Amino acid sequence: MKQSQTFIPTMREVPQNVHTNSCQMLLRSGFIRQYSNGTYSYLPLAKRVLKKIEQIVREEIEKRNAIELELPCIQSIDFYKQSGRLLEDLIHFQDDFGREFVIGPSMDLMTSIVRDEIKTYKKLPIALYQMQKRLQNIKESRLDLFHARESCILNAYSFHESEESLNQTFADMIQTFERIFSRLGLTVQMAETDAGPFGKESYEFVVLTTIGDETIAFSDQSKYAANEEIAKVSIEYERSNEEMKPLKKIETPNVQTIQELCDELHLEPTQCIKSLVLNIDGEIAVALVRGDHRLNLIKVKKALNASDIRLANEGEIQKHIGCSKGSIGPIKLPIDIKVIADYGIQSMVNAVTGANEDGYHYMNVNPNRDFAINLYEDIRYIEEGDPSPDGQGILLLKQGIVVGRATKLAPEYAEKMSANVVNKEGTQIPLQIASYELELTRLFAILAEQFQDDRGFTWPKHLAPYDLHLMAINVNDEVQFNLVEQLYNILTAYRYNVLYDNRDERAGVKFADSDLIGLPIRVTVGKKAIEGIVEVKNRKTGETIECMKEELIDYLNEFYRTH
Amino acid sequence: MKQSQTFIPTMREVPQNVHTNSCQMLLRSGFIRQYSNGTYSYLPLAKRVLKKIEQIVREEIEKRNAIELELPCIQSIDFYKQSGRLLEDLIHFQDDFGREFVIGPSMDLMTSIVRDEIKTYKKLPIALYQMQKRLQNIKESRLDLFHARESCILNAYSFHESEESLNQTFADMIQTFERIFSRLGLTVQMAETDAGPFGKESYEFVVLTTIGDETIAFSDQSKYAANEEIAKVSIEYERSNEEMKPLKKIETPNVQTIQELCDELHLEPTQCIKSLVLNIDGEIAVALVRGDHRLNLIKVKKALNASDIRLANEGEIQKHIGCSKGSIGPIKLPIDIKVIADYGIQSMVNAVTGANEDGYHYMNVNPNRDFAINLYEDIRYIEEGDPSPDGQGILLLKQGIVVGRATKLAPEYAEKMSANVVNKEGTQIPLQIASYELELTRLFAILAEQFQDDRGFTWPKHLAPYDLHLMAINVNDEVQFNLVEQLYNILTAYRYNVLYDNRDERAGVKFADSDLIGLPIRVTVGKKAIEGIVEVKNRKTGETIECMKEELIDYLNEFYRTH
Repeated sequence: MKQSQTFIPTMREVPQNVHTNSCQMLLRSGFIRQYSNGTYSYLPLAKRVLKKIEQIVREEIEKRNAIELELPCIQSIDFYKQSGRLLEDLIHFQDDFGREFVIGPSMDLMTSIVRDEIKTYKKLPIALYQMQKRLQNIKESRLDLFHARESCILNAYSFHESEESLNQTFADMIQTFERIFSRLGLTVQMAETDAGPFGKESYEFVVLTTIGDETIAFSDQSKYAANEEIAKVSIEYERSNEEMKPLKKIETPNVQTIQELCDELHLEPTQCIKSLVLNIDGEIAVALVRGDHRLNLIKVKKALNASDIRLANEGEIQKHIGCSKGSIGPIKLPIDIKVIADYGIQSMVNAVTGANEDGYHYMNVNPNRDFAINLYEDIRYIEEGDPSPDGQGILLLKQGIVVGRATKLAPEYAEKMSANVVNKEGTQIPLQIASYELELTRLFAILAEQFQDDRGFTWPKHLAPYDLHLMAINVNDEVQFNLVEQLYNILTAYRYNVLYDNRDERAGVKFADSDLIGLPIRVTVGKKAIEGIVEVKNRKTGETIECMKEELIDYLNEFYRTH
Repeated sequence: MKQSQTFIPTMREVPQNVHTNSCQMLLRSGFIRQYSNGTYSYLPLAKRVLKKIEQIVREEIEKRNAIELELPCIQSIDFYKQSGRLLEDLIHFQDDFGREFVIGPSMDLMTSIVRDEIKTYKKLPIALYQMQKRLQNIKESRLDLFHARESCILNAYSFHESEESLNQTFADMIQTFERIFSRLGLTVQMAETDAGPFGKESYEFVVLTTIGDETIAFSDQSKYAANEEIAKVSIEYERSNEEMKPLKKIETPNVQTIQELCDELHLEPTQCIKSLVLNIDGEIAVALVRGDHRLNLIKVKKALNASDIRLANEGEIQKHIGCSKGSIGPIKLPIDIKVIADYGIQSMVNAVTGANEDGYHYMNVNPNRDFAINLYEDIRYIEEGDPSPDGQGILLLKQGIVVGRATKLAPEYAEKMSANVVNKEGTQIPLQIASYELELTRLFAILAEQFQDDRGFTWPKHLAPYDLHLMAINVNDEVQFNLVEQLYNILTAYRYNVLYDNRDERAGVKFADSDLIGLPIRVTVGKKAIEGIVEVKNRKTGETIECMKEELIDYLNEFYRTH
């Protein structure tokens, strides 16, 4: 491809107000343009890389006999209500008759098609997939290249008669994902995660990076890894031997936070009970964790099997408890307010907590003696240094970006969708279903983050938009021009995808653009053209050699065979 | 691919309530499923055919140096307002802040990207394209497989400094489209069509078929073809020698239509003036055509350079003229109501028309003598038998489906988009732009309509989802089973895409499914397996031969080389 015929608008200035290296470099090197917060145009170079990623994914997933199809994304909202799944982030619209539609995900539709067409175990297992643009109405605060309103997604589903068959395919698909990551050159961690309302067991595939928005807990001594949202606390809390002292109400004007309380009374956060008011499916409840811990709402939601949970707002707190949120405590709460406490509360002696009255706290608070608890549960986030739930080592926390998910669905999902088959014995049984997802656009952005240096991209051969960059120092020099044109024809005939910079620009401009674009090899025709010598430069290592034009193909064949 | 591992839900019964042969056969043969009116799931076989169509389009369009990119389809409605183009059929939605978005088309965005990045003629011409799903909120009445809410579209645009360059690429792209249609095996007519508000010159590519919803006018003696909406009337109306008689008002109770008028007064429609009340950009006007002609609103719109035009409703007619629509005529109209007449009116003598009073008509009406006309124009639809505008032959009308469009945009579009470049002389000039569109999903449906007989599809080799169908009559016969498995391995090793029906079904079922799916060749292993003989059947011709297993590859190589 002659560079004059394609569209690579590189930028001289470094774009401002761009948060990630990947996005900045993609803008500079003319791979993408931002249309708005969360929507991007993928220009020709980016489109070529995206297609290479898609091709790798397609090859690997088809090796597992997953079959491609294409489902509509415009779905009736009535259809969507059958599964009862959350509608957050979906795009809604109406037709002329006022009927509501959503741009929906594929799971319910895929399940319903298999349910309608496959009636017997004989046609199972089957794995189906599609690669489609996902359009979402994502909340503004989360938008960037990694959280785009539009992105390309692989969605695969496998359908089975038995749990054994499901487990087999599930393990195979995880291997397939690992093979895809390895071919892309990415180090990806698999971590257990929240399986959602219809999931039985779920894993996410995470690339560790400081720009990540997910926190993953790892054991320092085993393979254990889980999203901090679900990582279990397995500590055995020790009870102090201290005598229980009499409950005492004290004045604490201006104290609103655990930190202010500790400063005022010269305490450690471990001696305080943090009390948070929650709205759980419309009912007000109070959750207790130790002062140095963070309440994990996802754990509370699971423990109570709730469908909707959030922190109560100031108005709800005033109405039900009659004080501000800085003075909440478990003592003398209205009788209809349930108390759920983290296991860490159980062993506390002579603790401090709010008095449900602004400006007052209680000292020498002792659970069970001074207040009742409806439920003890693990409801706090794990902290770095907590023991690993598998008993091996302690946990470390790291940031990451989720690039994929694999989920075994709970049988309730198939039941809700009336998705049954007849088994060998002639009995109707619910389908066993698993779902697999890869975020292709996000993989592209992560790869752009990883394969770059301060001058531009350093794409590996199998992801680079073209195999090599070809140019002459001076296109107005007839010898150089003739040689570069000759090489372009030869290389193309040898099936190299060549980006040929045929522009009449200064060499410095062409070199800078070439470094930005980052093809693995740059072939430059310069003054030595007259001797039939060209320069071959490795973009990543900077290594440069001179090469007779007759030897160029051999050199490149060798390079691309081994790199 | 083993048939047991893929997903081909063929149907025994012929589906009801399906209007087109293509849709019915695609349902029966397990290629598609309907999700709702206007949305379809493309199952694995259809997806494979769609990808082959896409591949052919991509190959041909890239030969013209068109470069692929991918634009966002979620666009701010504010952005969309800049070009002022119509918003009909677009999906609208709002984000959490109440800001409005549309799932928009690509033209404005493509133009704005080129405008922002290309400042000089040196980087022109350039052609960019994308292949994307188009999501539309189509009106219910038009929905079917050919008018789907979701369909895959090729959108290409070329940008130029000069009209000569634009004309060159435009001609090249039309050739490219013709080459694509020819590779697909489709006969496609190019017809002039309405270029829309920002178009200068536009053509549509039409497959003639009785299920089509567009009417195309053709000359019976030349290459002239145009959509009936814009085909010019070039008739020379002859004025009769009849003497003008005195105007006469007559009672015509119960007469509402031209037909009733003719029956009542024993006239021909050619002697009547048909008067229609229009609302043109909010103003009421009356349009006149001869009784045997049909008013063409698109021509009226163009003649008056109007932006919105429609027939007035009964209320508007009563308010402004004071009678019902069956009694309208040009005589003694309120002075502020303009009259626009078709050229056919000019030569009428002693005509009949409504008296703007219910129950009355005028006889012996003579234009200019009895009423004034603000504008004479060609405002009627052509009729079959009218002379061809190029002076060669007469026009025939045929139904067709539009599968593509090519449009030269008017300079006003670039001006509205502020899309300028600097030319050789250093002057800012508006970009010359053309747009090219192919309806890929519709091409698929048309091909399905064409390549079928009463037993199923008859796909040509280069569009068939697999190269050939392989099966054994009896999979429980060890000799047959071993041979069919051996052939599957050999054929796959020879890079044939084989659909291997390994199901334990009756031969009749497998044959019927095979005919439905319609791969070009069926290889059947039967009783003669013991002699190493297989049967090879040509799906389209029905021709069947017996073949030694050793000769099969040679036979197939020959077949696929020549078919």
